[in-house]
Amino acid sequence: MEKVTVFGAGSWGTALAIVLAENGHQTLLWTHREDQATEINQYHTNKKYLPETILPTELTATSDLAEAIEHSTLFVIAVPTKAIREVCSNMMKTLNKKALFIHVSKGIEPDTLLRISEILEGSLPAEVVSDIVVLSGPSHAEEVVLRHPTTITAACENIDSAEKVQDLFMNGYFRVYTNTDVIGVELGGALKNVIALGAGISDGLEYGDNAKAALITRGLAEISRLGVKMGGNPFTFSGLSGMGDLIATCTSVHSRNWRAGNMLGKGLTLNEVLEKVGMVVEGVRTTKAAYQLAQKYDVPMPLTSALYEVLFHEKTPKDAVDELMIRMKKREIDLY
Amino acid sequence: MEKVTVFGAGSWGTALAIVLAENGHQTLLWTHREDQATEINQYHTNKKYLPETILPTELTATSDLAEAIEHSTLFVIAVPTKAIREVCSNMMKTLNKKALFIHVSKGIEPDTLLRISEILEGSLPAEVVSDIVVLSGPSHAEEVVLRHPTTITAACENIDSAEKVQDLFMNGYFRVYTNTDVIGVELGGALKNVIALGAGISDGLEYGDNAKAALITRGLAEISRLGVKMGGNPFTFSGLSGMGDLIATCTSVHSRNWRAGNMLGKGLTLNEVLEKVGMVVEGVRTTKAAYQLAQKYDVPMPLTSALYEVLFHEKTPKDAVDELMIRMKKREIDLY
Repeated sequence: MEKVTVFGAGSWGTALAIVLAENGHQTLLWTHREDQATEINQYHTNKKYLPETILPTELTATSDLAEAIEHSTLFVIAVPTKAIREVCSNMMKTLNKKALFIHVSKGIEPDTLLRISEILEGSLPAEVVSDIVVLSGPSHAEEVVLRHPTTITAACENIDSAEKVQDLFMNGYFRVYTNTDVIGVELGGALKNVIALGAGISDGLEYGDNAKAALITRGLAEISRLGVKMGGNPFTFSGLSGMGDLIATCTSVHSRNWRAGNMLGKGLTLNEVLEKVGMVVEGVRTTKAAYQLAQKYDVPMPLTSALYEVLFHEKTPKDAVDELMIRMKKREIDLY
Repeated sequence: MEKVTVFGAGSWGTALAIVLAENGHQTLLWTHREDQATEINQYHTNKKYLPETILPTELTATSDLAEAIEHSTLFVIAVPTKAIREVCSNMMKTLNKKALFIHVSKGIEPDTLLRISEILEGSLPAEVVSDIVVLSGPSHAEEVVLRHPTTITAACENIDSAEKVQDLFMNGYFRVYTNTDVIGVELGGALKNVIALGAGISDGLEYGDNAKAALITRGLAEISRLGVKMGGNPFTFSGLSGMGDLIATCTSVHSRNWRAGNMLGKGLTLNEVLEKVGMVVEGVRTTKAAYQLAQKYDVPMPLTSALYEVLFHEKTPKDAVDELMIRMKKREIDLY
């Protein structure tokens, strides 16, 4: 059994900490909020993020970053994408040993256009990083805590590190597959949030399952087109962390990005939506980054471009989806 | 404007006849049931299949096969897959001109392992067939009649015939794309019903969106693997008639195959399910055919095989899905 630290006690960080604790690992969950750490330690709940769940009593929490770092050399980074740089910088005040970093965040930084593993590499000196592994796939936290069967991909160029992560998390209901294509896995996880916004818009307009299936299909085509140009393996985009995660996100009410899109489709403005959701809507930031990537790599991404216009240039959602549906290409193969 | 005959007044045949009539084509709908033809002509409804829909008054129906054949040289074949041979044989009693056959059925015949276009070719002398076009994609009839945006693929080796069909059906909400890969389009449309049964079982077991997304993803992988070996284009399986139709079928309550799987997952026997659904569950027949194809072409199709055991050898749905989820392959790329 291992010692593991999970940084970030949102729904996903907490769900992963539960899996690790259930697998017998001595798991410490770090949160920047002292009251949340107290709630977890005293009441074994995390009501804000997983209101229905009782946490294993072996799972403990702390808000002391130095203590969290001291606890182990296996770090699961589950903070919001936006907070990663700050957390890394705070970590470096006390971190003076090598650790394996397992990140579970999804996104691409606008303007720098960096993937999460690249942000981590840039924020942490090589002396403290033994490897960076990304864990990504169709995995709503709400279902993992119910022990419903879930599959997920652990990716690292160094297959030994990916297998180490596989061994940590694998159990009867949480199935981990390894992959060495970090680029493909990270891009799939990030860009599906863009498509989920689009699928939500289509549902908000009450366009139905035919239209949504078409948007998801073309969405994956444009993700793959960009991802392969950026060095990803086409098989990865057809896999669990690509197509799998895309489908789970676009067809589930658990998805924040789908919900945000749904409200946009129903006529709310972006500001109203962000206020209502109350949590980070990663797809909004990622849409900007994806739009910039499409330009940089000169890849046609009609869905991403349409969404960019909706989010940042006040195109109406109906006009955007209608334009996508009636693009004038006539041969299907030309769409891909 | 053209004259078109639609053979088969189920929900899909009727929806397509409505699209054609709305596009200004003189459309005659053939049904083998005289009372249904009368209902359509007198009341402009087809309550059994599309209870909420008012048909255009220009759309007429007949139960006289000779009259239906006489009406046009553009034949849309929308009868159940099982009835195709019989309808063709009856047609040949009066058909003595060349017609363009547009088929919209989905399935593979067990034992002969023929695709629908091959059944048509085998049942109709070459003198009466100018071409056979398959029309397939994510298109629930219930949404088409609401004029919700729908995309679909028209496939024929002869692109001119595919474009002819595109012109017939294309309008603002019904978008038709052409493809020359008949094998890929037909296989995608048939085999998705197998995966839809599996997705329904997973939902019936209340396994959630993570598990279902994994099943759909692996399902498409095995469809593509078989399809490419049979001569299909890999892009077709990633397209509207492959991935698109698969997603629409696996995530919609409109799908009969999903509903049948759902009941199996809840513990009903196959006979109880077939009785309850009351209509043809094409996926059951197709599962047998797909299982035979996997053996013939020596392609591993774990989902299809598991489903075959459930349907024909009384394996419990829970055991089947659990086995699929915990297959011991460890590297994701090995799954494809």
